[in-house]
Amino acid sequence: MMGSSANGSCDPSASRAGAGAVVDKDVDFANYFCTYAYLYHQKEMLADRVRMDAYFNAVFQNKHHFQGKVVLDVGTGSGILAIWCAQAGARKVYAVEATKMADHARQLVKGNNVEDIVEVIEGSMEEVTLPEKVDVIISEWMGYFLLRESMFDSVICGRDRWLKPDGVMYPSHARMWMAPIRSGLGDQKMNDLESAMSDWYGFVEETENYYGVNMNILTKPFREEHEKYYLKTSLWSNLHPDQVMGASVVMKEIDCLTATVDEIRIVNSTFTLPISIDRTRLSALAGWFDVHFRGSKQNPATCEIELTTAPSVENSTHWGQQLFLLHPSLRVNEGDELVISFLMRRSKENHRLMNVDLTYELQQSSGKRLPAVNSKFYIE
Amino acid sequence: MMGSSANGSCDPSASRAGAGAVVDKDVDFANYFCTYAYLYHQKEMLADRVRMDAYFNAVFQNKHHFQGKVVLDVGTGSGILAIWCAQAGARKVYAVEATKMADHARQLVKGNNVEDIVEVIEGSMEEVTLPEKVDVIISEWMGYFLLRESMFDSVICGRDRWLKPDGVMYPSHARMWMAPIRSGLGDQKMNDLESAMSDWYGFVEETENYYGVNMNILTKPFREEHEKYYLKTSLWSNLHPDQVMGASVVMKEIDCLTATVDEIRIVNSTFTLPISIDRTRLSALAGWFDVHFRGSKQNPATCEIELTTAPSVENSTHWGQQLFLLHPSLRVNEGDELVISFLMRRSKENHRLMNVDLTYELQQSSGKRLPAVNSKFYIE
Repeated sequence: MMGSSANGSCDPSASRAGAGAVVDKDVDFANYFCTYAYLYHQKEMLADRVRMDAYFNAVFQNKHHFQGKVVLDVGTGSGILAIWCAQAGARKVYAVEATKMADHARQLVKGNNVEDIVEVIEGSMEEVTLPEKVDVIISEWMGYFLLRESMFDSVICGRDRWLKPDGVMYPSHARMWMAPIRSGLGDQKMNDLESAMSDWYGFVEETENYYGVNMNILTKPFREEHEKYYLKTSLWSNLHPDQVMGASVVMKEIDCLTATVDEIRIVNSTFTLPISIDRTRLSALAGWFDVHFRGSKQNPATCEIELTTAPSVENSTHWGQQLFLLHPSLRVNEGDELVISFLMRRSKENHRLMNVDLTYELQQSSGKRLPAVNSKFYIE
Repeated sequence: MMGSSANGSCDPSASRAGAGAVVDKDVDFANYFCTYAYLYHQKEMLADRVRMDAYFNAVFQNKHHFQGKVVLDVGTGSGILAIWCAQAGARKVYAVEATKMADHARQLVKGNNVEDIVEVIEGSMEEVTLPEKVDVIISEWMGYFLLRESMFDSVICGRDRWLKPDGVMYPSHARMWMAPIRSGLGDQKMNDLESAMSDWYGFVEETENYYGVNMNILTKPFREEHEKYYLKTSLWSNLHPDQVMGASVVMKEIDCLTATVDEIRIVNSTFTLPISIDRTRLSALAGWFDVHFRGSKQNPATCEIELTTAPSVENSTHWGQQLFLLHPSLRVNEGDELVISFLMRRSKENHRLMNVDLTYELQQSSGKRLPAVNSKFYIE
């Protein structure tokens, strides 16, 4: 394994982090792929009924896209999407999986009697070679807030190398959403931070008294580290729709058939969030995504399917929503608007994680505009 | 960072995993060093009073080892050991730290007015070059059950390259201990496993009914994965001394002045644990360690200090003890003996983690010997 040169033969952009640093494949395994080699993690995704229903319906209610066709499944995991494609009538399914989960997928394929159709290939999408071009690419590549994990890079790589000119993407479209949120979580995290700091001050005093070393110079970096952890790292949450304080807004759209890595490496969006609840504290913004299965223009779906991860009482997903806490929170009224400038880039240290620069300005219904606030967030 | 060739100029064994695989430095950072770059983690260690008292007393009650001397601190972290050495009268302290914590250490050194004595060097011990040989090497290198993290390799590397022939090691000696334990944790973990399995069976049934895929072929690997997690991974615990059911036994001794990487890469020990409590269930073995600060033969400590991580009501440590659950547990009586064969090797995938092959046979006081049981454990 040691010293192996990273990256495959694909689009070199697929192997580059946000800042242009090249990704070490072994490090990427240690940081990222390792999780996907566990069945407990696969089960968590397989037990997500919203996710499962969407893909299941997308495939079985659009059998014409699969019957007699050649399919590529990027990141097959346990292999279930590949098996469905075979059951829906595919002639051949190439199921690519980078981790040792490939062995389990092969077993599952056999256990469901589709081993003549589904070929599980262990390897990264950037490196594998298929014997033929494919009619359909199916993949469940979405991470938190859509783009975390940067796995769509691998789907793009597979598409550009292996999809026929009239091929179809499953899903075909993706969107990122944002909405204003009320939540007690900000106060709670602020309390957690203050409690950690109060503990730190006691520790500094003890270390000085007992051990003759003054740690006070580390108070600032300690606070910064903990502010990042408690306040500036976006939080997984499963919001109640009542927490949404106004219309949610689409801030980014992706056409999976044409998107390039350059189009998703940075998300730069300016938009306005209207507030529709009176006299409330706006304490967070929430981000989520949806994807659609519409086929392509030449070859549309018979039945369009949507998979949404929006706040929902009954249809929550394992993706949930990402919460960005606003400190301090804003006192808002119906008719106010929040003007947002959102810039998301990949972390220099790990291209599968994201850094967000967020600027928000409250435009009050009275016409008054509060000063802009700049915040940094980390999607980790 | 990418593609950098791993390993330094030191003893090549220091850069090899248990199975002879060479360690990728960037992967090692992703898996291991990253944790040490956080102040919250440093604080956890600095708040361990047993650890702090032992090193503090070792240094300040043996000032003759430090006064006017040159010291190397391997893995200085926040720099506190290096600062103590300076305060105890060292002429020069080289404080080597592989992570960005080096920046904080440098600040702390300055904040405590010893920047003329302590030189913080950011780099791995295998790679850095010192301008002179040293009289003392101090290091807090101990991981769970002493050898997890394999950090002593780096201390050996520093010692072989930089310690003067009559130099002193702090600590000078280390021992691994084992004892028979009574604990309800085994039953609890078994319940957790059964609950996970019962959940899995429901999931298999649902997936078959709703989505037409039979997951049953993955039941065996799912169970194996969860058995490993719940039953075969050693558990951190803070045992009460009453849980120890007989004399604890030293199973490995290390002389820090002479030990080689070959001597610690594999721990192979056969020993007998006497049971001193009647009619009890033996449900686990516990492993822990102690280290001693005795100086060297030519240059002994004035005041020998011990740091032990044995079960204790008042002096528990952040290391705690590692618990190895026995399934099924054994019904034992006073006078019985457990004959243990213990083989610990480094994991092939990550040389800082350990795999244990344990064989135990109950020798009853009646003379009857129960069949040997073989178990595999993972220290992760």
